[in-house]
Amino acid sequence: MMETLKVPYGMRDHLPGEAARMRGLETKLVKLFSTWGYDEVSTPTIEYLDTLTLGGNALELHMFKLFDRGNETVALRHEMTTPIARLAASRLSEAPMPLKLSYCANVFRYEQAQTGRQCEFRQAGVELLGAGGAEADAEVIALAVASLSEAGLADFQISIGHAGFIRGLMEQAGLDAKSRENVEKALERHDLVELRRIMKTSGVSGKTAEILSEIPLLCGKKEIIDRVYPYALSEESRRSLDNLSEIYRMLGSYGAADNVMIDLGVVRDFGYYTGMVFEAYASGIGFPLAGGGRYDRLLSSFGTPCPATGFATGIERIAIALGESEEFAAPKDMFIAYAEGNREQAIHKAKEVRDDGHTAELAFTAMDEKTALKMKNEKGYSSLIYIK
Amino acid sequence: MMETLKVPYGMRDHLPGEAARMRGLETKLVKLFSTWGYDEVSTPTIEYLDTLTLGGNALELHMFKLFDRGNETVALRHEMTTPIARLAASRLSEAPMPLKLSYCANVFRYEQAQTGRQCEFRQAGVELLGAGGAEADAEVIALAVASLSEAGLADFQISIGHAGFIRGLMEQAGLDAKSRENVEKALERHDLVELRRIMKTSGVSGKTAEILSEIPLLCGKKEIIDRVYPYALSEESRRSLDNLSEIYRMLGSYGAADNVMIDLGVVRDFGYYTGMVFEAYASGIGFPLAGGGRYDRLLSSFGTPCPATGFATGIERIAIALGESEEFAAPKDMFIAYAEGNREQAIHKAKEVRDDGHTAELAFTAMDEKTALKMKNEKGYSSLIYIK
Repeated sequence: MMETLKVPYGMRDHLPGEAARMRGLETKLVKLFSTWGYDEVSTPTIEYLDTLTLGGNALELHMFKLFDRGNETVALRHEMTTPIARLAASRLSEAPMPLKLSYCANVFRYEQAQTGRQCEFRQAGVELLGAGGAEADAEVIALAVASLSEAGLADFQISIGHAGFIRGLMEQAGLDAKSRENVEKALERHDLVELRRIMKTSGVSGKTAEILSEIPLLCGKKEIIDRVYPYALSEESRRSLDNLSEIYRMLGSYGAADNVMIDLGVVRDFGYYTGMVFEAYASGIGFPLAGGGRYDRLLSSFGTPCPATGFATGIERIAIALGESEEFAAPKDMFIAYAEGNREQAIHKAKEVRDDGHTAELAFTAMDEKTALKMKNEKGYSSLIYIK
Repeated sequence: MMETLKVPYGMRDHLPGEAARMRGLETKLVKLFSTWGYDEVSTPTIEYLDTLTLGGNALELHMFKLFDRGNETVALRHEMTTPIARLAASRLSEAPMPLKLSYCANVFRYEQAQTGRQCEFRQAGVELLGAGGAEADAEVIALAVASLSEAGLADFQISIGHAGFIRGLMEQAGLDAKSRENVEKALERHDLVELRRIMKTSGVSGKTAEILSEIPLLCGKKEIIDRVYPYALSEESRRSLDNLSEIYRMLGSYGAADNVMIDLGVVRDFGYYTGMVFEAYASGIGFPLAGGGRYDRLLSSFGTPCPATGFATGIERIAIALGESEEFAAPKDMFIAYAEGNREQAIHKAKEVRDDGHTAELAFTAMDEKTALKMKNEKGYSSLIYIK
């Protein structure tokens, strides 16, 4: 293939059909967010690197960086939560709280590209700023459930964990910074062997070691919380379990409990989560379709302390999970062709059909009826209108 | 303001209201393009620089460039026509022609930022590939007229010129490459004095000099073509006028002639236009809202010779021209608040309201009715539902 026909690593086109599915999903989600009172905002694709890394620089190596004309380092946004926090702190600090915002935007990360993981992808999500209670977290999770249902997914599940529970346990174990980091990495990989090894080399024993090495297995309904409660000796881990319990109970009121599991092993890869964290999975799909959580410290990095919670869905990922669903395909109603001398009539006919809300493609030259029928079929239109 | 609260030069946020207006416009345009048979596609934000400059490198200095991990120079797309041409040449070369594609995407150019001219902006447009006749150009212009009407603009005008007419005249005048470039620059600025100067210094005289220096004034309805026809001595300029005449006549069938003027001084700033070119203006707005034209040579740079025509609209620019129109504002129907102990009922009420297609924001804590009313007003909801 000619070099100029290629796209850079991890980038991709969306062809007709695919692009229509993504558009349909996006429109549905933005509309849903709006009916829940979340107002759409948009932010620039390019931000100062210092802004994007304010919540933590774990992903800095994955960012697309460049220099602006003033020679400052800027980068393509790698997620939307930090830009929305910046926007809220700078532009909406006088708005009545809580503030409910939504977005749909492309984000960029250097990654090993594979199905469901490209270097540019589209996220739709919400941020709920200025509400610290379990009610806010429950609403956000319930809205994530509603989003995936609205998208057309039948078989999916949301796993909720808690950043504070794990942090509390690590504190209770007296782990040093390095060991904590190792535990977090092992949790991300669900690596039970490594967790046991860390407990051993760090000299952690007893119930704390037992529960810490079993975190990836602590998955189920409400009973999981009851089961681990006796092991939670630090105030932070106890408070985290109480909080999770309350959120889970509240999800019942939303009719969302069936789609939700407690999974204390959920670890999100951003540094900024402080409370509840969650991920959504569809059966048979190996990557999360949505994820989010509470981040109560990020806004204060922007000078405006404010509790916050939210989530993002991956539009391409939901499209993959839905498969070749026809629901969002653009309709192909009428192909309008004409014999020599009848173009003007054909143009009027096309207008009539479009004004009725149908799709009409007008042929580009006069053609005989047989050619018109062939073209109508090739282009996938349902009907032919031939003007002779 | 804290440094981290700033956005890079020429970048901007769209706040609630503004973002909803842009979303509304985008949705309307993509839907309109679809009813005319144009299928939406999307391409990556980042392309190889060599791909983006294939149609001409006049704008290379305005591009946002960076290096990919393989150390190749890539850039943020500065327009959509070239990426769509790449996509068509590489991915859709087997599709039945003519191929009708649409897009809605952010593009990036370093510019002196001002109202209607940011360094990142959103374009919605179409490309019609594989049809070389005046019919295709007329359809594209008629669709541009339909787009601006659909967007809600009442008072706008499309000016059509022809790249071949000017090229033909310059050839007929025997201008060298440098003088041609100067003529093009002077035409872009509508600089009559400079045009006369170039004619003088290049030794061009007579009717050719007269018409070339008056190009920016050659603006009107059909009579303009009749007026300049006797001056068009080269085959290319005559053929161009015939072509423009035919396109203009065809626009009558679409009922679009009222919105269209002939303006032989229209010069688009890309190197790749080969035929009809046009720009759309709204009264009182100093920048074009849409622009496009025929580019019959671009596809062959990708190895797939194919005639093509199309246009792009600027979403932010249309939004500015529309002003503070409320049409696209997200509705704010119900604020739902509750007395202590009634949250579950409130959640059910919110679901009911949303299921009916209305917007409902749920209060985050129990509150008395007076506070609820105050909050409903602050947040701009039409009604309060208070559950006590």
